[in-house]
Amino acid sequence: MSHSIEIPARRGKAHEVKMGQSIKLINTHGNQVVDTWAYVADDLGEYMSMEATRATITKLIPAVGDTLYTNNRRPILTLTEDTTPGIHDTLLAACDRYRYGLLGCTDYHDNCSDNLAAAMEALGYNISHTPAPLNMFMNIPWTQEGSLSFESPTSKPGQYSILKAELDLIIAFSTCPQDMLPVNGENQIPTNAHFEILP
Amino acid sequence: MSHSIEIPARRGKAHEVKMGQSIKLINTHGNQVVDTWAYVADDLGEYMSMEATRATITKLIPAVGDTLYTNNRRPILTLTEDTTPGIHDTLLAACDRYRYGLLGCTDYHDNCSDNLAAAMEALGYNISHTPAPLNMFMNIPWTQEGSLSFESPTSKPGQYSILKAELDLIIAFSTCPQDMLPVNGENQIPTNAHFEILP
Repeated sequence: MSHSIEIPARRGKAHEVKMGQSIKLINTHGNQVVDTWAYVADDLGEYMSMEATRATITKLIPAVGDTLYTNNRRPILTLTEDTTPGIHDTLLAACDRYRYGLLGCTDYHDNCSDNLAAAMEALGYNISHTPAPLNMFMNIPWTQEGSLSFESPTSKPGQYSILKAELDLIIAFSTCPQDMLPVNGENQIPTNAHFEILP
Repeated sequence: MSHSIEIPARRGKAHEVKMGQSIKLINTHGNQVVDTWAYVADDLGEYMSMEATRATITKLIPAVGDTLYTNNRRPILTLTEDTTPGIHDTLLAACDRYRYGLLGCTDYHDNCSDNLAAAMEALGYNISHTPAPLNMFMNIPWTQEGSLSFESPTSKPGQYSILKAELDLIIAFSTCPQDMLPVNGENQIPTNAHFEILP
């Protein structure tokens, strides 16, 4: 019986996952973007890469059945089930202290990049930089002309996505603390989310 | 008087550039993709980031007047002139030894990732990983549904793009040695290209 692990609001959480296990990521409150990273367990220099994934699946967003690839072009996760409308993002950087500075913040603002580092550090890992994340539930539509916009997530409370581990890995999540743009819904209130490790 | 510097076919070349100088990148033979990176001169941990750029300019491809941003969200280059049709790519990873393995290569194949490392090493710099490149002249169209395809460049021989340095930086180029997909034109023959540093 799997148990539910909380990703607290505005925070990160990392967890070891064995090859063949799956991670069920639940959008508990429905509008919460969850930045997602995956690292190869025995080599943090190899990690899930959005630019390698797009080149391999030739899509902007992975759909059920699609695999995510590492910077060494190895399968690391496969999206095996998705009860959301399937709108996720592979295009945008994780928010960071600099991003909030550009948005006008003068004090420290929680951010996904620092959340990733803290979550990995809690497991004893130090990372050198922030890879481009898989932004689960994030809604960044594009036009045929190539314009992007920030829109509210389309996922409803309790909807989930399941990612199967293709090798031993460390999964890391951050519940995006963005409250200055409507990426976490029109009310712009970041919430917690949950995940389960399935055998 | 600026002089022309060759980026040999299938190879990389890096060069120091001062704030305010511009780099004129010439597609000498017209169909050659040139993977492009830029690093902050006094801190290689800060570099041009496609994911940060897309988030800031809210576009898939920068146009004349648009600025490219670092992973710390600082302006690093501005596209000030472009005599090509303006088709470049920010979505795909640099090719690497793993990519050619997936395409069926059993021997070593020249690749942009190794070219970047070698070009930086020739200036005395060691890099820790390959950031997502700005793929100048590369033609990767998207559909409204989010499908990507590999198409021939639209640039003609002698057409060029000018990038202005917003801070002291190291620019690195690789003439993409891809000869298994038509990213360098239908004839799939990688060629050299040239650049000039303008005062």
